[in-house]
Amino acid sequence: MAHIQVREDLPGIRGLMVFRPETAEPLNQLADLLLRGPNTLSPGERELIATFVSSRNDCFFCQTVHGAVAAYHLDNNEQLVRDVKTDPEHAAVSDKLKALLAVAGKVQCSGKEVTTEDISRARERGATDMEIHDTVLIAAAFCMFNRYVDGLGTWAPTDLDIYRQRAPITARDGYANSIQRILADNGQGD
Amino acid sequence: MAHIQVREDLPGIRGLMVFRPETAEPLNQLADLLLRGPNTLSPGERELIATFVSSRNDCFFCQTVHGAVAAYHLDNNEQLVRDVKTDPEHAAVSDKLKALLAVAGKVQCSGKEVTTEDISRARERGATDMEIHDTVLIAAAFCMFNRYVDGLGTWAPTDLDIYRQRAPITARDGYANSIQRILADNGQGD
Repeated sequence: MAHIQVREDLPGIRGLMVFRPETAEPLNQLADLLLRGPNTLSPGERELIATFVSSRNDCFFCQTVHGAVAAYHLDNNEQLVRDVKTDPEHAAVSDKLKALLAVAGKVQCSGKEVTTEDISRARERGATDMEIHDTVLIAAAFCMFNRYVDGLGTWAPTDLDIYRQRAPITARDGYANSIQRILADNGQGD
Repeated sequence: MAHIQVREDLPGIRGLMVFRPETAEPLNQLADLLLRGPNTLSPGERELIATFVSSRNDCFFCQTVHGAVAAYHLDNNEQLVRDVKTDPEHAAVSDKLKALLAVAGKVQCSGKEVTTEDISRARERGATDMEIHDTVLIAAAFCMFNRYVDGLGTWAPTDLDIYRQRAPITARDGYANSIQRILADNGQGD
């Protein structure tokens, strides 16, 4: 049971967003922009960064939701998602993404850990300023989402098939729509 | 100099928000809602939570900006802001706020550190579910803002008077407006 009274049928961040739709709006707008908006990093790459940071923060709900969406975008390659979580430097991703994952890993600990060398390495491998910016902000945002989900003691389903089945819907419709639909059913929507 | 090319005259998060106005919008909407929206916690109390977390994350820009706004809301009591940062349990704030600051301090480390006892203590001292929710989300959000600001290596003025002078304007106009004004001057605004 969560630390506050939220709808018991809604796991993780979903119960919190229905509890407080006002803050859900910018949170979902941020997630949709960073993970699904126009970008030179693919949705799969960005979901991998989100999954990697959530895994480092040991947030089961976020790493499983975003891991499933990442796999969906990457030809259902769940092994690749596991590899990125456990050993990104040896995973089958581009050298650029490896350098960006290293930056994200530093941000997960503290923004201050990111060095000029980390950034130079990413840039030498072709990362643009916008890609570096978005990587840092995705990593920082998941340090927020993970703390929000776990700090309020939410529950998460343990059956991975639930996440697998949901992933294509999330990939198609986005994060904001998913909450809007629940709120509309609740009689609280637009 | 920041890790990416941002306007050199804009310190901290301000340069980043002008670099990427799309993400600035939900970030500012979130900050305005959490710190300035209708709430049973006063703006001063909420800015204290933001300042406390930013101090624990050692983010000079955020703790100084929000510390100045907190002091402005609290009869310019800068000593109180310093006390909350160094020893919240003995600062001259309500017992309820002390319990909420303790929750925020746990969230700063990890969402998983928040215990049922931490929540019970806050509730026994009068905290509502909404106040607990907002405390956790403010703490989580500043774990994002702090990492965004420091992870991209932004600079911050060291002259505290700059923050003191700005605080009443921020308290009056809010966070989104401040960036909108720069973007409009830039020819990028609405």
